[in-house]
Amino acid sequence: MTFADAAAVRRESDGVYLAHVPPGWDIAGATNGGYLMALVTRAVLAETGTCDPVTVTTHFFRPVRPGPVRVQVRPLRIGGRLSTATATLLDAQGAVLLAALATVGELPDMGLDGSTAPESAGLSAAAPDLDPPERCVLVEPTDTFPPPFMAHVRLHLPFDVAGFTRGQPSGRAQMRGWFALPDDEPLDSLVVLLAADAFPPPVFNTALPIGWTPTVELTVQVRARPAGSRLRCDFVTRFVGRGFLEADGEIWDEAGGLLALSRQLALVPRG
Amino acid sequence: MTFADAAAVRRESDGVYLAHVPPGWDIAGATNGGYLMALVTRAVLAETGTCDPVTVTTHFFRPVRPGPVRVQVRPLRIGGRLSTATATLLDAQGAVLLAALATVGELPDMGLDGSTAPESAGLSAAAPDLDPPERCVLVEPTDTFPPPFMAHVRLHLPFDVAGFTRGQPSGRAQMRGWFALPDDEPLDSLVVLLAADAFPPPVFNTALPIGWTPTVELTVQVRARPAGSRLRCDFVTRFVGRGFLEADGEIWDEAGGLLALSRQLALVPRG
Repeated sequence: MTFADAAAVRRESDGVYLAHVPPGWDIAGATNGGYLMALVTRAVLAETGTCDPVTVTTHFFRPVRPGPVRVQVRPLRIGGRLSTATATLLDAQGAVLLAALATVGELPDMGLDGSTAPESAGLSAAAPDLDPPERCVLVEPTDTFPPPFMAHVRLHLPFDVAGFTRGQPSGRAQMRGWFALPDDEPLDSLVVLLAADAFPPPVFNTALPIGWTPTVELTVQVRARPAGSRLRCDFVTRFVGRGFLEADGEIWDEAGGLLALSRQLALVPRG
Repeated sequence: MTFADAAAVRRESDGVYLAHVPPGWDIAGATNGGYLMALVTRAVLAETGTCDPVTVTTHFFRPVRPGPVRVQVRPLRIGGRLSTATATLLDAQGAVLLAALATVGELPDMGLDGSTAPESAGLSAAAPDLDPPERCVLVEPTDTFPPPFMAHVRLHLPFDVAGFTRGQPSGRAQMRGWFALPDDEPLDSLVVLLAADAFPPPVFNTALPIGWTPTVELTVQVRARPAGSRLRCDFVTRFVGRGFLEADGEIWDEAGGLLALSRQLALVPRG
């Protein structure tokens, strides 16, 4: 099943969209947050007649299980350049599973080239320097860990970053690598939302005893549509404490153009 | 007028709160976004019976002028630890000025001490190293620039960071310094939202010809309530292009505990 099919929505009436969360897109029983974010954003795009997410924030209330779901979209602004709507995802019993606030519009086709930022401005902007995919480690799905969800994305991690899969965490709270879809499914701006939540948590590469980081909130700011068939992704965690951690992401296209910034707030379950 | 008074809301009915945006809290005619974010969050706290913002995202639709406003709050989850609501701010004619998605709850009283993050985890977490306020430059309000809004906050910037006010930008897209309220008004978790949008844009310290950066979206993730009477703040911009820029903020308390992370997406008007 392609990502486009898995995240498809069908209009039922004004502001109401039906979808079906397929099995196998979960991590330990909770459907992947980036996939769900893309699904509700697709309903927002349909309702507002626009093409691309510009900035989307999703707050997650409870684990989403496979099955029929409904997206309720409430447009707040239908603008020239930007439109905004709230969206909620409900299960078959009408329970709210997550809520989103999305500003959407039309994005350019190519990433922002970091090198165009004038050095004199003191702006640092460089794509992560990654080994080519063929020299990286593919994260393969298993029944447990890595989770079955990894069948729906193709993550190639540099050898040191993949250390956590061998029981040898790199020692840096960083997760970086290449993102692609299976069978070279083309990438669009909704795939960027999936990529923002597809990598294992950066703290998996530390000695911290954290095995699970349920997302409270995820914001993705998208600057451009991807070109090419792969994304360069980089996620770091700097602050763990008081029961929370953040994961900051940069998503770049193959040619080294910035596509998106992401930030996630997650719970650190008491271990 | 204190910040607490300026951002006060009065319950009219279920989910409806009235407020008055006072004059003088604007920058070139547009009321400060952090102040507005605190105002609508106060209504969310009142409606959900909670104390503190945990993560709040606001999307700004149009400049907000002084005058009567209405906040409509729609609770989506009333939880044990976390509650979530959407909120919209409307003017006297019923036009939606901004929308927020807020998860709220109860925060601890002290900031996360960066030094508790184990070095071995590769987590970098240090409060900005600032000269003491008495050796910094106070940003004084004027009728034009700095704007009248600066009468409602007390920003002390290190000499080099204040360079842009003397026509000598530092050359780094960074704005950092101390934040306090006038007359030592106590700081609470809502003040952190104000602080997240109180500093001039980091790009003012570059050679880029950008004089105005209207906010599209601002997210603030709050980890703790502030202790003490001042905040240490640090904002940087790394990516300017395609008509957008971001500003990433860290807000720390006086004792060096992390209080909040912020990220803003702003328009770069065609100059």
